[in-house]
Amino acid sequence: MTASTGQSLTDAVLATFRDAGDARFRQIMSSLVRHLHGFVRDTELTEAEWFAAIRFLTATGQKCDDKRQEYILLSDTLGVSMLVDAINHRKPGGATETTVFGPFYLPGSASLPMWSDIANGCAGEPCYINGRVLDVNGRPIPGATLDIWQTDGDGWYDVQKPDAAFARGKLTTDGEGRFGFRTVKPVSYPIPTDGPVGEMLGAMGRHPYRPAHVHAIVSAPGYQAVTTHVFVAGDPYLGSDAVFGVKDSLVTAFTAHPAGTAPDGKPCAVSFHTAQYEFRLVKE
Amino acid sequence: MTASTGQSLTDAVLATFRDAGDARFRQIMSSLVRHLHGFVRDTELTEAEWFAAIRFLTATGQKCDDKRQEYILLSDTLGVSMLVDAINHRKPGGATETTVFGPFYLPGSASLPMWSDIANGCAGEPCYINGRVLDVNGRPIPGATLDIWQTDGDGWYDVQKPDAAFARGKLTTDGEGRFGFRTVKPVSYPIPTDGPVGEMLGAMGRHPYRPAHVHAIVSAPGYQAVTTHVFVAGDPYLGSDAVFGVKDSLVTAFTAHPAGTAPDGKPCAVSFHTAQYEFRLVKE
Repeated sequence: MTASTGQSLTDAVLATFRDAGDARFRQIMSSLVRHLHGFVRDTELTEAEWFAAIRFLTATGQKCDDKRQEYILLSDTLGVSMLVDAINHRKPGGATETTVFGPFYLPGSASLPMWSDIANGCAGEPCYINGRVLDVNGRPIPGATLDIWQTDGDGWYDVQKPDAAFARGKLTTDGEGRFGFRTVKPVSYPIPTDGPVGEMLGAMGRHPYRPAHVHAIVSAPGYQAVTTHVFVAGDPYLGSDAVFGVKDSLVTAFTAHPAGTAPDGKPCAVSFHTAQYEFRLVKE
Repeated sequence: MTASTGQSLTDAVLATFRDAGDARFRQIMSSLVRHLHGFVRDTELTEAEWFAAIRFLTATGQKCDDKRQEYILLSDTLGVSMLVDAINHRKPGGATETTVFGPFYLPGSASLPMWSDIANGCAGEPCYINGRVLDVNGRPIPGATLDIWQTDGDGWYDVQKPDAAFARGKLTTDGEGRFGFRTVKPVSYPIPTDGPVGEMLGAMGRHPYRPAHVHAIVSAPGYQAVTTHVFVAGDPYLGSDAVFGVKDSLVTAFTAHPAGTAPDGKPCAVSFHTAQYEFRLVKE
């Protein structure tokens, strides 16, 4: 079994997996090697290109730290994350669709009462979001949890700023499945471009923007949790999300209002926005 | 162009490359995305498996430093390096075949006279290697350069030990294309297993060994340089090289001799080995 060129080399590599203890690992690595060798053969990669790839992959790993995950960004910008999402969340019709998790979630957000202001003083225009959590037959789910996170009005997540904490919170639905909270209107923002993925997007002639959205993980006992976004209708990047996360069913209108009484029943001294969304969960 | 699932998502990603300035970059990235999405679809990768892959790729990058290149090791152990080698060095019959470059080359080795001892006192059994550098028609090439590197008799390269320098040197062929040097007999050795690639090999049930070999870059004005190994016949790992680098034409006999007169004409006080190899270069 001395390996030479072409298919015999691929076969020699595949043969070395025959003693892998785990059948699923063997299956995954075999498919990976077939596709990886197929890619090298299709492109007839030069040695200089191969070395550029080695350097890119190395730099992508070295850009990662406890606050930055450049490999997730790479997976996102090549559509791999959304493909994995699509494969793993084939929802029945009527259920809220999933989208990318993204790198900015933090566990352990505080549980807040209805109509709390999650903005915590961050920059941005006041925005009131409310709606219901329902099952796929339209019946309200009381006691469902919404774990919410989003950017401020300048397009930054709190974890991108030193010692900042804003625009996150956990809401619970009332007896009729209703939720509501005050926040700021999310805005479109660029994914981080100061690393290898930014260089790659530049070489591709692609912009790094994501359309404005609010992240939500919606869960309830007895139902499948859904990780998703609510997108702002009319955003200029809805058609070209840098991470391919947009699904039409997740886009909703955000409506502007002059100063006056807000949906929480209290006065708002400046103009504000409102949006509604209904999440629909599938039974476990 | 909101992306959904399956092929339409792949098409949406491919469409974003249409503005890439460089046609070759567009070609490479398009092939990469097709194969990468094909791999995810074929295996129906779970979210946990996707995240294990993200962690593996990140750790592989973070294992790299100025003396360690874990991504080259990954490329080597998945047969990608030898495939790139095969694609880029399709030699005519009779020419010396190429094999992997490996991560242990150092530029700037000293030029040494015929029959120099490159071992520099390192551990191992004395070994005398000589031969000729010829063109593909068998005509000697005077003034050809052999840039040589190898392990000591314990299986270590000097760069793997602090402040060590051994078993490297540049030889030049004489007027009849002949070269000769003293060294130690190379031994089979494991590639580094204290990183993600070692974990991967363990999960595959693969050993990490490479069969004993001497590295050589052979070059001469007017000829294509060749990066290759000379392997030791009879090595137990010739059939299962961890990096798939063995080609039959690169294996040669190493013969044991009792103490006595060595090929350099001088006495050797202990038993020693000899080996011969003829390198054949292609005109540029």
